[in-house]
Amino acid sequence: MREQYNVTLGTLAADLASMCGLAEAAMESATRALLTADLAVAEHTISGREAIDRAAADWEHQAFGVLALQSPVALDLRIMVSGLHIVADLQRMGGLAIHVAELARRRHPAHVLPVEVERVFAEMGRVAVEQADSTRKVLLSRDAELAAELQTKDEAMDELHRSLFTLTSAPGWPHGIPAAVDITLLGRFYERFSDHTVEVAERVIFLVTGEFRSDET
Amino acid sequence: MREQYNVTLGTLAADLASMCGLAEAAMESATRALLTADLAVAEHTISGREAIDRAAADWEHQAFGVLALQSPVALDLRIMVSGLHIVADLQRMGGLAIHVAELARRRHPAHVLPVEVERVFAEMGRVAVEQADSTRKVLLSRDAELAAELQTKDEAMDELHRSLFTLTSAPGWPHGIPAAVDITLLGRFYERFSDHTVEVAERVIFLVTGEFRSDET
Repeated sequence: MREQYNVTLGTLAADLASMCGLAEAAMESATRALLTADLAVAEHTISGREAIDRAAADWEHQAFGVLALQSPVALDLRIMVSGLHIVADLQRMGGLAIHVAELARRRHPAHVLPVEVERVFAEMGRVAVEQADSTRKVLLSRDAELAAELQTKDEAMDELHRSLFTLTSAPGWPHGIPAAVDITLLGRFYERFSDHTVEVAERVIFLVTGEFRSDET
Repeated sequence: MREQYNVTLGTLAADLASMCGLAEAAMESATRALLTADLAVAEHTISGREAIDRAAADWEHQAFGVLALQSPVALDLRIMVSGLHIVADLQRMGGLAIHVAELARRRHPAHVLPVEVERVFAEMGRVAVEQADSTRKVLLSRDAELAAELQTKDEAMDELHRSLFTLTSAPGWPHGIPAAVDITLLGRFYERFSDHTVEVAERVIFLVTGEFRSDET
């Protein structure tokens, strides 16, 4: 029974990492769809929603079973409780990537982005995918140092996000309000994606140290 | 021990409702700060962040204790697992209300909103507060019918949100891009607040029926 128990907890950790991989892939392809106005890539990204939502529901279902049948304690219980939060963050990351793809699809065959901001979104996409990749590694390794590094990347994302406001608010912005509105929403999607990677990292730090996050007290 | 156990679960349900009340009050005062450009009200709303974050951390800490010491099963376990999700939703609702107040503070003494959209935001605020109030009642009563009604109100919010795009994207919008950007972000904050009330309602339906949400499968 104990062996079965360990297998299940190990599987649950691997499943979180795999779900993070789905969110990462979704953000990679959503950014590609956005930058190239490629409808097929946008559709493909959007169709991934079902797999992400199913993975989240499966995880919760399995976690519920472990809690009900095995009454885990101490670190094992912390893994379950943290995992329930993490799975919600990962599902939301997937949802945000899909929002990006949906906007690309809605504007197709036009490009959502004026050429002046393409570089910023290419960079936001790169940072977001990198953050998701580090998050995936953190979920597998429970490496608190790597988890702490994720916060630095969040600052890079915030800086990119601020630069969008500067560009769209500059006098003489030639692309009108609908483009500025799209850019504002997209900027928010990338920034929130990035926030969720930090939240997952903070949960892993809680797992390793047993301390609740300092910003919640 | 069993009596203590019941008391704790009862307390946890009441604590969720009370936390929902904090988010509701925050959204009420944030909307007031937004509509009246009242700096004191904005500051007061923002200062509520600590109480909301502390309530969330306390809840999780207590839930962890119940899980570790009492190994709840069946409905009691579902309450704990759902509660862990709900507390994250409620904390986020508080955070979104505070984002509204922060924008009011940032633009003070100017009004964030041009007069044309004041009515829409007054209505979004009213709907959001009403949704939070229903959510609070749902948390206390576990009334699945009232929980299902919350989804109807979400449609009202979506309609208001769409009307903002129509207003800011109309040819001849006279207030420029920075105002449109603020309105876009604010619209998103209210819409997400509303989404979270629906997510809480869905969790309560799960609690009552034992079924995972259909949109997650």
